[in-house]
Amino acid sequence: FLPSGAGVEPGSRPGTVAAVLPAGGCGERMGVRTPKQFCRVLERPLISYTLQALERVCWIKDIVVAVTAENMEAMRSIIQRYRHKRISLAEAGATRHRSIFNGLKALAEDQPDVVIIHDAVRPFVEEDILLRVVTAAKEHGAAGAIRPLVSTVISPSADGCLEHSLDRAKHRASEMPQAFLFDVIYKAYQQCSDYDFEFGTECLQLALKYSHTKAKLVEGPPDLWKVTYKRDLLAARSVIKEKISQEICVVMNTKDEESAGHLLKEVLKKELNCVNVTSTVLDHTGGNVQKFPTDQCYSFICVNVVSSEFQETQKFLSTLEESGLPLLYPVVVVLVHCCDLTLAPLASKMESLMWIRSLAEDMKKRNVLLSGLLLNYSKDEQKLQESFQQGASIIAALVKERSSALAGQLLLA
Amino acid sequence: FLPSGAGVEPGSRPGTVAAVLPAGGCGERMGVRTPKQFCRVLERPLISYTLQALERVCWIKDIVVAVTAENMEAMRSIIQRYRHKRISLAEAGATRHRSIFNGLKALAEDQPDVVIIHDAVRPFVEEDILLRVVTAAKEHGAAGAIRPLVSTVISPSADGCLEHSLDRAKHRASEMPQAFLFDVIYKAYQQCSDYDFEFGTECLQLALKYSHTKAKLVEGPPDLWKVTYKRDLLAARSVIKEKISQEICVVMNTKDEESAGHLLKEVLKKELNCVNVTSTVLDHTGGNVQKFPTDQCYSFICVNVVSSEFQETQKFLSTLEESGLPLLYPVVVVLVHCCDLTLAPLASKMESLMWIRSLAEDMKKRNVLLSGLLLNYSKDEQKLQESFQQGASIIAALVKERSSALAGQLLLA
Ligand SMILES: [Mg+2]
Ligand SMILES: [Mg+2]
Repeated sequence: FLPSGAGVEPGSRPGTVAAVLPAGGCGERMGVRTPKQFCRVLERPLISYTLQALERVCWIKDIVVAVTAENMEAMRSIIQRYRHKRISLAEAGATRHRSIFNGLKALAEDQPDVVIIHDAVRPFVEEDILLRVVTAAKEHGAAGAIRPLVSTVISPSADGCLEHSLDRAKHRASEMPQAFLFDVIYKAYQQCSDYDFEFGTECLQLALKYSHTKAKLVEGPPDLWKVTYKRDLLAARSVIKEKISQEICVVMNTKDEESAGHLLKEVLKKELNCVNVTSTVLDHTGGNVQKFPTDQCYSFICVNVVSSEFQETQKFLSTLEESGLPLLYPVVVVLVHCCDLTLAPLASKMESLMWIRSLAEDMKKRNVLLSGLLLNYSKDEQKLQESFQQGASIIAALVKERSSALAGQLLLA
Repeated sequence: FLPSGAGVEPGSRPGTVAAVLPAGGCGERMGVRTPKQFCRVLERPLISYTLQALERVCWIKDIVVAVTAENMEAMRSIIQRYRHKRISLAEAGATRHRSIFNGLKALAEDQPDVVIIHDAVRPFVEEDILLRVVTAAKEHGAAGAIRPLVSTVISPSADGCLEHSLDRAKHRASEMPQAFLFDVIYKAYQQCSDYDFEFGTECLQLALKYSHTKAKLVEGPPDLWKVTYKRDLLAARSVIKEKISQEICVVMNTKDEESAGHLLKEVLKKELNCVNVTSTVLDHTGGNVQKFPTDQCYSFICVNVVSSEFQETQKFLSTLEESGLPLLYPVVVVLVHCCDLTLAPLASKMESLMWIRSLAEDMKKRNVLLSGLLLNYSKDEQKLQESFQQGASIIAALVKERSSALAGQLLLA
């Protein structure tokens, strides 16, 4: 058996690329019972983030996930629920290498020129490094991402004492993704011994040993790290929260540059200087889907759109839901109501906004975290500034924390 | 020159133990300008957490921190502000090894039997591993914590290709803390070459090379990890937040087992099953400092202590402040007011609790995050349950997030 892709001249044409994701691991190092790739981050399994990272790279034509028989059904429902595309499933083997081999077998019928091997627990892989390992694999037959060592590596003697320490400058940590000409890695696996399947850790080593292919090593970014311990899961949650909070959209019902919405937008820009604050004007039918920042914006600050009839708000929320945004991440919506509290009694004002509570309860089920913010629009310039500043801090906290327990609350600035 | 501690028989007596903490690094790997040991976690510099971890081990008699001349003043004010004890300062050298040597020189006058070397950016070191490396150092002359490798280590060829990969099972990552008989490490540093000072990474290797001492390797826990990248700082923040949220104290004004406070305590216990929920009854003078869980509790839920006069609350807050708790971590205080909202109009109820706002603003400056929670104490059993459940979720969010932007808010369950 010789794969038909064997004759591809390196670098000569883009070629077809597929990916194999071994996801059979049991996550004992996490100190939790759930395998780490299925641990939830913002309610979504980690592996879904990794799939999302791979599927947004359009030139990866097929993604094979190897999962254990007992997790097969769960995996299917993840794919369906988060609408992942171009995924096929293979059954995981008893070890990582057997899982990868099973994934490769699933591709062997209609084999790609290049196959990427990645980990289900490295969700932050970017197109750039994928492209670099694939390009290097086309040229060298095999390639893998590496990183500088964080700790010195030492070799202990049998009695647990220091034998010698390795020169940190001369060694690297081997990370994922790795990429191979399909026949290089497939041939290697076909020749693997049971010992390799059991104890081997490094695909690049197998390519060297059995296909005589010296892998090209490609320096990767730090965010390739593998979610291994519980702290890594906490870090992943923080990184994801930070990523989706990089963009805030202020939704207004007027283009007037003197409006509260515009003022708030300016304060938000100043206060959150790493966040991109955009704005959109809502038309009278409620939604304005064309102007929705559709791809990376998961936080909407609606200023004075609120009315006691709340029909516009409901229309806006429907549009939001139809956009599919809340499918992958919880979306934060803050309904800001500006009013001069010296003119209207606070209590009655708050009472009139209580409908936000029940609406929020409903929206929470749809992964939209709705809350209200009553902003004191004082005639006193200093008080007004303070209100806006405090309002911006509250908005920043709601956006960054994305806490579902606080949905439905009416806050005051 | 021969250190006087040289004659100590290993393991014969506890001996004196000191620690050296090189903190001269510039943190370029973080992608931030502040050296990572000075990056703030919950408003406090990371190095202060590490100092706290070392100083709570009573048998460490002296902690020498090596900082650069430019950070000397900042370091002094950290020590003062967070009331660190048993710290001396030494000037950092141009490299890590020179900083450690300077730290050792500062101890040479009145030298300890054993010296621990630790990193300023490993804040989660526990007494257990410190004791184990110190004990091993007494027996072997040198000892260091190790961890299994997370990634395979490979050695690249000159042209950036895979030469060979190391057997992961036969290698370990060398971590901190390490410990040495003082003369072993001091003698080693006295003989170090400029090359060692410049490019060496491993103290254990220096002890082997110059003092012919084979270090004992001690398997350490995963939380020894070094805060290296931005994600590590995010993980550290999450770990610290989680640690200080492990204990919640419900403060009540009655021992009555049927009281709202007791009911809420039970719901909190059920909802937050990894959190230790204790309670204390406040006497009529307000504070009850004896019953304060003084050491690890940073979250207080005061049930029905609130009154519109709020004198008891103020007394409680003063006691809290005097306890010194808010010195190291932000303390969360939730003032829960239970009332049947079918009997009293919500708006007036909320208005009557508005004093929490101004009090909270004041307390925020003292690192106490105060907020109010109005809990609907309905006669309808199901509604009551719902309120308590929602109240518990809100409390959990306030405790876990510890967001200062939400201090002063009046929440509703
Ligand atoms: Mg080291
Ligand atoms: Mg590996």
